[in-house]
Amino acid sequence: MLIPKSHPRAASLHIREKLVSGYKSGLLVEEGLLAHGRGETFDYLIGEKTSKYALRAIKAASVALILAKAPVISVNGNFAALCPKEIVQLAKIVNAKIEVNLFYTNEKRKRNIAKTLKKNGAKEILGLESKYYKTIPKLDSARRVADKRGIFSADVVLVPLEDGDRTIALKKFGKKVITFDLNPLSRTAQTADITIVDNVIRGMKILVDISKKFAKKKNLSKIKFDNKKNLAHSINLVKKNLRRMAHV
Amino acid sequence: MLIPKSHPRAASLHIREKLVSGYKSGLLVEEGLLAHGRGETFDYLIGEKTSKYALRAIKAASVALILAKAPVISVNGNFAALCPKEIVQLAKIVNAKIEVNLFYTNEKRKRNIAKTLKKNGAKEILGLESKYYKTIPKLDSARRVADKRGIFSADVVLVPLEDGDRTIALKKFGKKVITFDLNPLSRTAQTADITIVDNVIRGMKILVDISKKFAKKKNLSKIKFDNKKNLAHSINLVKKNLRRMAHV
Repeated sequence: MLIPKSHPRAASLHIREKLVSGYKSGLLVEEGLLAHGRGETFDYLIGEKTSKYALRAIKAASVALILAKAPVISVNGNFAALCPKEIVQLAKIVNAKIEVNLFYTNEKRKRNIAKTLKKNGAKEILGLESKYYKTIPKLDSARRVADKRGIFSADVVLVPLEDGDRTIALKKFGKKVITFDLNPLSRTAQTADITIVDNVIRGMKILVDISKKFAKKKNLSKIKFDNKKNLAHSINLVKKNLRRMAHV
Repeated sequence: MLIPKSHPRAASLHIREKLVSGYKSGLLVEEGLLAHGRGETFDYLIGEKTSKYALRAIKAASVALILAKAPVISVNGNFAALCPKEIVQLAKIVNAKIEVNLFYTNEKRKRNIAKTLKKNGAKEILGLESKYYKTIPKLDSARRVADKRGIFSADVVLVPLEDGDRTIALKKFGKKVITFDLNPLSRTAQTADITIVDNVIRGMKILVDISKKFAKKKNLSKIKFDNKKNLAHSINLVKKNLRRMAHV
């Protein structure tokens, strides 16, 4: 696809191409492309940069992952297409397991995602063998499968770009949920314990860097973090940007 | 793709499926799916219903199309996938030509779109035969082709879901531009003469209904319409909804 260099949104169009390439490699389904588009708009509305509120959430997330007993990073197609390297790096730093877990589940796609992660240095990938499948209560049948060595028995789960129903089910099931969601109003954003309102490409790089530093600290303690309040700040940021962009 | 009935965003997910089905029939490219996702977010922010400002723009658009000497409806893949029937209905009512005109141009895709429109009752489709191609000035080479019997010689052009560069070029080329754009801040929205900030599926149905009534009127006269002011109202609507949704 030829993107004219003169086009003012060339950068954003190039990120789209990254996702389209992930789609063509069988990592994500068409609905994942649409979902990314939804995120693009919110990214544009938050100003296409990491806010101080996102940074605050990233720090809280980093500490929660490092202090967790059994942290798990849940990976879907969009997440794998956008930042496979950072997923593997983060898992190593915070000693988390990686589990492939999809909204529109499909065994072949799971294997494609696992392959991409392994290419980027991952060793063990959960969520691929049916003998380990267990079901999360209070969820529709197709979407409630989790790996009993992974999400099912985790205390802290990082589930970026996640569906609202599943986030709520994980919370009810007693998990501490960390997510990336560019829509500060979404059910996932509002339900999670820690919501990072940031583009996952930008945010994961920062989460990796901060975790490297935090993991070396001896007396790391939990950061006080009010997710609802932090989300309200992000929503205000959107309102401020709308005002600025619209000159009204 | 199985969408759980219990899912609160099932309606929106079903519209996505309509677009995905258009994608699978070769009407649109992956980037079109992403672009739709961007629109979905704005639709959510304007409240997923036709506002009075959108209705005002639809009325102005209807009159402009009916009074035009040579109106043309420009059709891309997303537009054809979402409302092929309404495109053909509107063209008949306002006596407009239909031209297939793509951002990522491709002859095969053009023919697929023409086929869909013909299935829905269209007779003549422009933009398919290279012997009629003429170039619009001040646009990158791949995107400046138009049909000399259609957009090239039109006075009023309806170009929904259009790219900013192309809208600006059409304006500079002396066309009256009517568009559908869910982002009231976009360059297309801000550049067009009449911007309908509405979901194209909802808005086209209303445009067809209103045009049926207006076309019967004897002394139809132009409606005074200030696009910038109308867009400012739409932007305020987004801000109000954000406030309401966020309870902050």
